[in-house]
Amino acid sequence: MKAFMDQNFLLQTETAQKLYHESAKHLPIIDYHCHLNPREVAEDHRFRSITELWLGGDHYKWRALRTNGVDERYITGDASDWEKFQKWAETVPYCMRNPIYHWTHLELRTAFGIQKLLNPETAREIYDECNEKLQQPGFSARGLMQHYNVEVVCTTDDPADTLEYHRQTRESGFVVKMLPTWRPDKAMAIEDPVAYRQYVERLSESANTEIRTYDDLLLALQTRHDFFASLGCRLSDHGLTEFYADDFTYNEIETIFSNVMDGHTPDSVELGKFRSALLLEFGRQDARAGWTQQYHYGPIRNNNSKMMRLLGPDTGYDSIGTVDTAASMARFLDKLCAEDNLAQTILYCINPSDNEMLATMIGNFQEGPVPGKIQFGSGWWFNDQKDGMERQMNALSLLGLLSRFVGMLTDSRSFLSYPRHEYFRRTLCNMLGNDVENGELPVEEMSRISRIVQDICYYNAKNYFRF
Amino acid sequence: MKAFMDQNFLLQTETAQKLYHESAKHLPIIDYHCHLNPREVAEDHRFRSITELWLGGDHYKWRALRTNGVDERYITGDASDWEKFQKWAETVPYCMRNPIYHWTHLELRTAFGIQKLLNPETAREIYDECNEKLQQPGFSARGLMQHYNVEVVCTTDDPADTLEYHRQTRESGFVVKMLPTWRPDKAMAIEDPVAYRQYVERLSESANTEIRTYDDLLLALQTRHDFFASLGCRLSDHGLTEFYADDFTYNEIETIFSNVMDGHTPDSVELGKFRSALLLEFGRQDARAGWTQQYHYGPIRNNNSKMMRLLGPDTGYDSIGTVDTAASMARFLDKLCAEDNLAQTILYCINPSDNEMLATMIGNFQEGPVPGKIQFGSGWWFNDQKDGMERQMNALSLLGLLSRFVGMLTDSRSFLSYPRHEYFRRTLCNMLGNDVENGELPVEEMSRISRIVQDICYYNAKNYFRF
Amino acid sequence: MKAFMDQNFLLQTETAQKLYHESAKHLPIIDYHCHLNPREVAEDHRFRSITELWLGGDHYKWRALRTNGVDERYITGDASDWEKFQKWAETVPYCMRNPIYHWTHLELRTAFGIQKLLNPETAREIYDECNEKLQQPGFSARGLMQHYNVEVVCTTDDPADTLEYHRQTRESGFVVKMLPTWRPDKAMAIEDPVAYRQYVERLSESANTEIRTYDDLLLALQTRHDFFASLGCRLSDHGLTEFYADDFTYNEIETIFSNVMDGHTPDSVELGKFRSALLLEFGRQDARAGWTQQYHYGPIRNNNSKMMRLLGPDTGYDSIGTVDTAASMARFLDKLCAEDNLAQTILYCINPSDNEMLATMIGNFQEGPVPGKIQFGSGWWFNDQKDGMERQMNALSLLGLLSRFVGMLTDSRSFLSYPRHEYFRRTLCNMLGNDVENGELPVEEMSRISRIVQDICYYNAKNYFRF
Repeated sequence: MKAFMDQNFLLQTETAQKLYHESAKHLPIIDYHCHLNPREVAEDHRFRSITELWLGGDHYKWRALRTNGVDERYITGDASDWEKFQKWAETVPYCMRNPIYHWTHLELRTAFGIQKLLNPETAREIYDECNEKLQQPGFSARGLMQHYNVEVVCTTDDPADTLEYHRQTRESGFVVKMLPTWRPDKAMAIEDPVAYRQYVERLSESANTEIRTYDDLLLALQTRHDFFASLGCRLSDHGLTEFYADDFTYNEIETIFSNVMDGHTPDSVELGKFRSALLLEFGRQDARAGWTQQYHYGPIRNNNSKMMRLLGPDTGYDSIGTVDTAASMARFLDKLCAEDNLAQTILYCINPSDNEMLATMIGNFQEGPVPGKIQFGSGWWFNDQKDGMERQMNALSLLGLLSRFVGMLTDSRSFLSYPRHEYFRRTLCNMLGNDVENGELPVEEMSRISRIVQDICYYNAKNYFRF
Repeated sequence: MKAFMDQNFLLQTETAQKLYHESAKHLPIIDYHCHLNPREVAEDHRFRSITELWLGGDHYKWRALRTNGVDERYITGDASDWEKFQKWAETVPYCMRNPIYHWTHLELRTAFGIQKLLNPETAREIYDECNEKLQQPGFSARGLMQHYNVEVVCTTDDPADTLEYHRQTRESGFVVKMLPTWRPDKAMAIEDPVAYRQYVERLSESANTEIRTYDDLLLALQTRHDFFASLGCRLSDHGLTEFYADDFTYNEIETIFSNVMDGHTPDSVELGKFRSALLLEFGRQDARAGWTQQYHYGPIRNNNSKMMRLLGPDTGYDSIGTVDTAASMARFLDKLCAEDNLAQTILYCINPSDNEMLATMIGNFQEGPVPGKIQFGSGWWFNDQKDGMERQMNALSLLGLLSRFVGMLTDSRSFLSYPRHEYFRRTLCNMLGNDVENGELPVEEMSRISRIVQDICYYNAKNYFRF
Repeated sequence: MKAFMDQNFLLQTETAQKLYHESAKHLPIIDYHCHLNPREVAEDHRFRSITELWLGGDHYKWRALRTNGVDERYITGDASDWEKFQKWAETVPYCMRNPIYHWTHLELRTAFGIQKLLNPETAREIYDECNEKLQQPGFSARGLMQHYNVEVVCTTDDPADTLEYHRQTRESGFVVKMLPTWRPDKAMAIEDPVAYRQYVERLSESANTEIRTYDDLLLALQTRHDFFASLGCRLSDHGLTEFYADDFTYNEIETIFSNVMDGHTPDSVELGKFRSALLLEFGRQDARAGWTQQYHYGPIRNNNSKMMRLLGPDTGYDSIGTVDTAASMARFLDKLCAEDNLAQTILYCINPSDNEMLATMIGNFQEGPVPGKIQFGSGWWFNDQKDGMERQMNALSLLGLLSRFVGMLTDSRSFLSYPRHEYFRRTLCNMLGNDVENGELPVEEMSRISRIVQDICYYNAKNYFRF
């Protein structure tokens, strides 16, 4: 019997162990997509308690607590930090087999050096020890990033953001490179004309240009796109329910935009046309700038309207959708490709039932000279765990080239999420190690296999994004 | 090499074996969803032969026979019991790798103490031995239920049913608690106005109230709902092709109902509105009564119209559908939740491609104080086998809390189906045992892991349904 | 550690090894669906180089090369055979975990006796050795077929084809039976009236009858169907995006046909009706002739319009779709079944998410006396690899009868693709062997298990197709 989470955690064969310990574990982390708060990096935030760090904004843990029957007061309510932590410690043993159980103990071990298991019996001493350590210098936002050997992080930012904290962080000489990512979802969100108009005004200010027409909108976006590029931005990101590739005319889009600005709520046809038009423009901007565009599609969000009113979005009420968007995805990518405006692209699905579709979709648009120009993104959100990673990497292996994969990202708001890269690397090494041991990959090519591991863990991302 | 189906069948590790033999196998069975015929329990039915017991109504076996090229005469036709059994014995070896092969031998062993394999060579002696045993006292309907340590069964009943056999069984002092389940599918089935009107008349009689308006219908249903509750009913169940959550007005529903009662066939918009309205009312009734509502969605039924005419429904011509109903499911649950009328809920999908969607959907509506208030139901129908159980439990583990799962049910018409609980328990113990042996769960928490096994096999259901 | 691809490649247990070496490997190959060029068989084509043989038309390899960043000149362009091979040799190590890595080395070993791994270091010597061997007598088209112990191949042919090469091959006394397969996709393709009219003219000539009406079309098709039958054809095949089962009247179809012939482009309703009508007629023809009908459904094709213009179809720009066609498939099969015109049928899905739906769909239409009358086809296209085969066979095992499966086909244009049968047989034996070793199948039934292996590898196809 293997000990729980020992040094060979998830590494079932000697070859896997060798691959991980010799080729993977020492490599720096390139976290090319996350949701860190740039201000916390700029100000080198210190955490008042492990409760703030763990339970302040982690909707995975909130969902686990609710499922465990815990009252909302101990989740997002006004209970004390200790009370909330106590409820969490009671819930942790009920999370066995959920990735949270592994994340929790990996974080305790790698950040705090705590080997104990979290449960009601150990809650108090772990709480105290973590809180004590959090007062030490190495446990600030920046301290944790350095501790985990992070080389680059790419945050997620709105076009209207000033990127002030990015500038501050860069000017402070912080060794970890923090770059912005262009996420223009709000510029598409015409379904709510009032909020949209407000957003356009904010965008107008940030671009220092009046926006009265659709052309003005595109110009303002381009101005901000250039500004993001000037601060090192190399990626965009788009959160989509599905892909849009409807036919439209320029005049139609102008009219829709102008009507929305006048307060008219668009119908579904207008929505489809406008989104199709703007999604193409976003793609063109990225192609011109030489960026990589990311598409995260498929969740259904804010399903619980009662809790939406109480807590707002991103509080644990989203889930995996079952949208059928293969045809529109293909049409969208083809439109960009046909006009030679298809930038490097990463496609992330949220429903693992889409894995095979997506792993073959990328093959339709691959072309040199960049290897793996179109990428099937790493297991996303709910799939960001061993099974999800294995399914994504197996589909990619069987239907594409795993060797050209740009690998893992945290997609996280937490400064403690970097052990997920360790988890990913162990999972990757385990898969390849098993194949070698089973005679499905040749041991004679071990140096190439080691190189593939290193590429997926680090070098592919470094080269692909040209960091 | 392990012997076929020995005491450690499906238990690949020592930890798994220990978990099963020490924590799982002795627990009573709570079979909270089945299709037993209450009359057969009330009258303590005796079986004239193993053919009646095995082949009298088991459409899984009928499908296997047809696939094996057997003439319908030996399946649902007028062949003798022995002839039918003989065809079945010929077919059994062709069922290897199908769960029927395991069910068959588990049932022979656990009910009849027969260790032989069924095949043409052994057919006659097994047939004779089974038939001889079936004449013994312990092999009646009630005898088998007691033999398998069943504590509670919940049958599936129409609102217009008298529940006479439930009352008789209770009054007889039978030690196994048999409770009715409210299954009001026919009250939704307005697509056939003639059959619907007949049904409404039957419902009207059973509720002892005239039904002329939609309000009358709701009142009659409430009367029957109360009656079911008075006989210990704690669950409802709904068989759906998909979820319905269309907008409607009260007046529209009144008109649709009244038109259908006048013989008018509703169009698809009217169907959607009516189903949406009534599904909400069902949910409200269950919330008021403190029941648990179950939704079985997604099959496509009666696909073979030739055989439908010859044999009627539920004869082996249904299959797994691919309906995309995540959005309407979310909307439906949200409507109930928003008005604080979301009862305890169990959602069963028939297509395992929906597992991840469903395992995350439940997370949108969890809330205390009941742990696991919204449940992802056990592998259903075609998925009621090792692979299906593993996929359902893995999805639930990774995306929710396995520990709060209310576990297995037979969904069966057969008094011999209880070994499926054994099968489930072995599968569960094997998964957890593997995790411990692999170092993915801590052996230090074995007492908690044992408790989780016991909870899933017995205590969670007992507490959740408050039996 | 197992050696790479040794004699027990993919065979993880002793039982699996025994099954493969004793029961499977010596059996002849019945390749009942492929895309070989009949002319190359008739003329016993010789290959100028391994580049022609491997890279001349293999879009799997082309996709891998493009993904690896290789310029199109080295793929479909004017680079020399050696240059193209060199690029391929550079790409091969990047294909580890993709089935191409296994196919490549299986083909080198089984055809050329080359044990070396292909990579840039070995490229030149392997290139030279292969090319030298290709000049030897045993390496012609026919030589390779005989080398691999092929008994029957069924090609894929248009109704208007003369089948001249089939006749020539038969008359030459070639020991491998090459039979045509009826693939009438072009007779359905009314979406392009100009191309359709040209096709109808070609069909008219081949059938030696004028086609002015829909009735004429059916008559001409029947004439050709009879002609195909006279040359030994036993199968049809249909490439579909989805199934069509719309309602229509005979008059509607007549009008649609006549309008299309006059150059009118049909709308989506007309398309649906026409396809529904003709698909039924195809089914009736096959039923009358006692053929087996095959349906390959679900891909989305020609996704890259830029490359479509440059290279045409079937050049590596197709992928897996996500169409929801279960209901229309059921309706279509039911229509044929209801009129007693449902021929033996093989259904192939391209999206493995459909496996469970399809494995249960076939159960709706099984009927004697032919065992396994309706078949769930082997892992198709992108799924033609170990994981895809295992998923297809597991779904079939759990939801149907694996024992009645007609097994593997290559679906290939290449005379080197026969090792895929070896791959399939190893995978099959491994699954059954594991089950026996785990105690999930009884070792006491080893002779029946061996027989099932032999049936799936050879005898089921032989009996089912009556070759």
